[in-house]
Amino acid sequence: MPALLRRHLLLGLAATAVALHAASPSKAQAPASAGPPDPALVEDLVAANRILVDQGVVDGYGHVSARHPASAERYLMARSIAPELVTAADIMEYDLDSVPVDARGRGSYLERFIHGEIYRARPDVRAIVHNHSPSVIPFGVTGVPLRPLYHMSAFLAGGVPVFDIRQASGGMTDMLVRDAALGRALAGTLGAAPVALMRGHGAVVVGPSLPVVVFRSVYTEVNARLQAQALALGGTVTYLDPEEARRAEASITGTIGRPWELWKRKAQGR
Amino acid sequence: MPALLRRHLLLGLAATAVALHAASPSKAQAPASAGPPDPALVEDLVAANRILVDQGVVDGYGHVSARHPASAERYLMARSIAPELVTAADIMEYDLDSVPVDARGRGSYLERFIHGEIYRARPDVRAIVHNHSPSVIPFGVTGVPLRPLYHMSAFLAGGVPVFDIRQASGGMTDMLVRDAALGRALAGTLGAAPVALMRGHGAVVVGPSLPVVVFRSVYTEVNARLQAQALALGGTVTYLDPEEARRAEASITGTIGRPWELWKRKAQGR
Amino acid sequence: MPALLRRHLLLGLAATAVALHAASPSKAQAPASAGPPDPALVEDLVAANRILVDQGVVDGYGHVSARHPASAERYLMARSIAPELVTAADIMEYDLDSVPVDARGRGSYLERFIHGEIYRARPDVRAIVHNHSPSVIPFGVTGVPLRPLYHMSAFLAGGVPVFDIRQASGGMTDMLVRDAALGRALAGTLGAAPVALMRGHGAVVVGPSLPVVVFRSVYTEVNARLQAQALALGGTVTYLDPEEARRAEASITGTIGRPWELWKRKAQGR
Amino acid sequence: MPALLRRHLLLGLAATAVALHAASPSKAQAPASAGPPDPALVEDLVAANRILVDQGVVDGYGHVSARHPASAERYLMARSIAPELVTAADIMEYDLDSVPVDARGRGSYLERFIHGEIYRARPDVRAIVHNHSPSVIPFGVTGVPLRPLYHMSAFLAGGVPVFDIRQASGGMTDMLVRDAALGRALAGTLGAAPVALMRGHGAVVVGPSLPVVVFRSVYTEVNARLQAQALALGGTVTYLDPEEARRAEASITGTIGRPWELWKRKAQGR
Repeated sequence: MPALLRRHLLLGLAATAVALHAASPSKAQAPASAGPPDPALVEDLVAANRILVDQGVVDGYGHVSARHPASAERYLMARSIAPELVTAADIMEYDLDSVPVDARGRGSYLERFIHGEIYRARPDVRAIVHNHSPSVIPFGVTGVPLRPLYHMSAFLAGGVPVFDIRQASGGMTDMLVRDAALGRALAGTLGAAPVALMRGHGAVVVGPSLPVVVFRSVYTEVNARLQAQALALGGTVTYLDPEEARRAEASITGTIGRPWELWKRKAQGR
Repeated sequence: MPALLRRHLLLGLAATAVALHAASPSKAQAPASAGPPDPALVEDLVAANRILVDQGVVDGYGHVSARHPASAERYLMARSIAPELVTAADIMEYDLDSVPVDARGRGSYLERFIHGEIYRARPDVRAIVHNHSPSVIPFGVTGVPLRPLYHMSAFLAGGVPVFDIRQASGGMTDMLVRDAALGRALAGTLGAAPVALMRGHGAVVVGPSLPVVVFRSVYTEVNARLQAQALALGGTVTYLDPEEARRAEASITGTIGRPWELWKRKAQGR
Repeated sequence: MPALLRRHLLLGLAATAVALHAASPSKAQAPASAGPPDPALVEDLVAANRILVDQGVVDGYGHVSARHPASAERYLMARSIAPELVTAADIMEYDLDSVPVDARGRGSYLERFIHGEIYRARPDVRAIVHNHSPSVIPFGVTGVPLRPLYHMSAFLAGGVPVFDIRQASGGMTDMLVRDAALGRALAGTLGAAPVALMRGHGAVVVGPSLPVVVFRSVYTEVNARLQAQALALGGTVTYLDPEEARRAEASITGTIGRPWELWKRKAQGR
Repeated sequence: MPALLRRHLLLGLAATAVALHAASPSKAQAPASAGPPDPALVEDLVAANRILVDQGVVDGYGHVSARHPASAERYLMARSIAPELVTAADIMEYDLDSVPVDARGRGSYLERFIHGEIYRARPDVRAIVHNHSPSVIPFGVTGVPLRPLYHMSAFLAGGVPVFDIRQASGGMTDMLVRDAALGRALAGTLGAAPVALMRGHGAVVVGPSLPVVVFRSVYTEVNARLQAQALALGGTVTYLDPEEARRAEASITGTIGRPWELWKRKAQGR
């Protein structure tokens, strides 16, 4: 049985309520490579995996990707492995259908379609994190809106949509974004936002670079923890005003190199 | 005084309300061994002890066992020692009455009957964890049902029964499952479930393998923590639908090798 | 100015509402030594300091003492230093007036009277911990009773009295148990209990040995954290029945060697 | 374009609602140095940065400064870098307009005006910390007053004012104290207090020395965490009486060398 057929059968296990879509036809061959990526980007991608572990955003699950610098139609992501164990040799290249360019027997994350479909829908996005960020989960299942309560998480001010896979698929799933149709549905819920929660699952975070997407992942987790504490204190929570948030985000974005340098040095020192 | 009599006298200290049962007669000899276990299984069992410490599921107390691969009537578990200190030399073999095959002076956990009686009642179970998993304790003492709020803990969807030793024994105990009758009562409460809480004590987690039972122990703890946070946020918590849970559990089970590889590598690197 | 006069002047700073008492007369000389303590006890006392740090019971403050094995009228405790830094050379001998036998310029904890007066009032006590155990503080200031919700903290079942220094002294203090009168008042509140909370301050924990007092300190902290979580879940908390607690405490006390061995090995490995 | 003009244009990005003030005129030259600072003070300042990280008060952001021992018109603070990475070579000298004496290409924290303006307004202050201390944030955004519930945080008893930059500036800002006018407004809110919260941002902590300001930063964080827990327990929280607090603060201040010695040794051992 050819690998591709096997792949589709495998995906089919959870596809009962989700029709296969035209943009994901069977292919006779693996997609062409956009060429070897910049080693500095690969180094940052490996570091990003470890930083997300160090900061408590991912555990044995979760993944981070970067768009290929040489082609908007390709992205880079580790093979299916725990983030803490990722090395440069684990980084694979995918097309936007999330088909690996050169798998060489390496397994792929089941939910790589999150990445392919968001890169397709959002030309501005150059890096994506999918996680089960712990403090964020309760917001995704209660409908309590996640909102920025301090300047570090000002990027949340435009609103954090919640993706409910049950509504998106029209029925019951295994909760995983395991095909292109579900990836497109998630990209639709995300819209132009930097973060979307996934009900009963986790979150997806996007940005223009790896440092920004890591920063946003870390401070989404921190904001969720602090917001839960503020709500528990009673009283009224004063969130950032939209104009404050717009200005704060612009200013803070200019400082992201500071924690990134720290995080990367620590991640590499291990 | 023969060791076995001493053992029964010792157990008798808390047996006031629990009749000794027919299945646990005095024996003249230690049970026969099912043979030396596979070293790879022993290695996994030692690793499982350390992983449960690393993940905050056990502290100086708690134990994990595996059914003997060569005989359904035997199981393997460390001598009475803190999980973090367990090495291969500490692994002992027990029969389903929880009598050690070859104690050689090594002490046994008082509550080994949890393991023996569940192995007897549940042929599908090949690994068992008993713990005082911190976030789980409050659910056991309040009657608030533990329910899966995300895909990682989908295995909880069938319901998590609570074992109240006071009802099981018909009176006051020292809270410990220190004989076969109490072990059988716990197995009865567990039924076909993967997890049971123990009121005022902790939990027992079972599964078809060591990686699965460790995975379930970790994500039972995580789900309890996240569920408490979700309840504190107010609003209505959307738990996994039973059908979502059934599908998610099937899918996630296929990925357990990923965190297991990570956890084991870290546990062995210490 | 003689050292003793200086000491009394120093203590006098907060003694406005507390009369000096007859049992603490000026002395012309340092008390006699009961002899060099057993090195194994000193080793355990040093280990106890570090274990309490490792377990989050003390930070840069807090102290632990042991009654001198050769004389019920003497106790051993570190000079005034953070618990994590204590070595055998820091262990000093005190009489029950908390006067050091041989200070050699080493400073004493201001609140050593906690130890002296409890040793005087409680012949059964052979080890004492004073701490600012974080999860315990909220119980001391709210009047919500600390109660055992699982077998590990069964020793709390007799009730945990709260010492309010304002009532004990009849006025305002600096919150410190800095003289014998306040130490006696605290011992009076403690009565025959193993633990007393100190309003706006911390707790004192006593026991028949260093392993037991360390065990009790650790599980008082854990129980406080779990009880707060259980209360937050809503529903009714089922605490241990007094009879369950009595039996559980007897059984668990027999197992304390297990975590103690672990904790000590880790404390010494640093 | 001269550097100073560039600096003012840069600051101007967020100055829409804040008039430039007379005390911050353009200068043709960098300010004169007060001379090389005491190496022991620089060592303490480097240690303070790392201690604040170790204690969870700062993450990749936050800063700590010390007034120059040789001139009340100068202060010392690291270049713009994550606190954990600060070494002696990163320490720069500033005048009270927060202009660096000798930048040599090293970047400055955007919010250095917090330091300059508080040193100007408060001659008693010799060290300042600005942080995003996590447990403190919820108090700053809810209006629930931060109050001392135990002796270690007695220094909070005079009240902890909350600086709302929106009110201070009369409009929307980027939340950052990025010029002298905002720094002066913050100093005005702080008044004679040791701590002020900053709504949607963090806190500023001041004191007569580095050990004291670090101590206060740590125990402000701890008190906030414990107070949130006490409020969640229900019941009425008994805070320190003002007279108790005054006395406790005096006593505890005399013991700060104990944790400082511990913290510094650990910070330097890394």
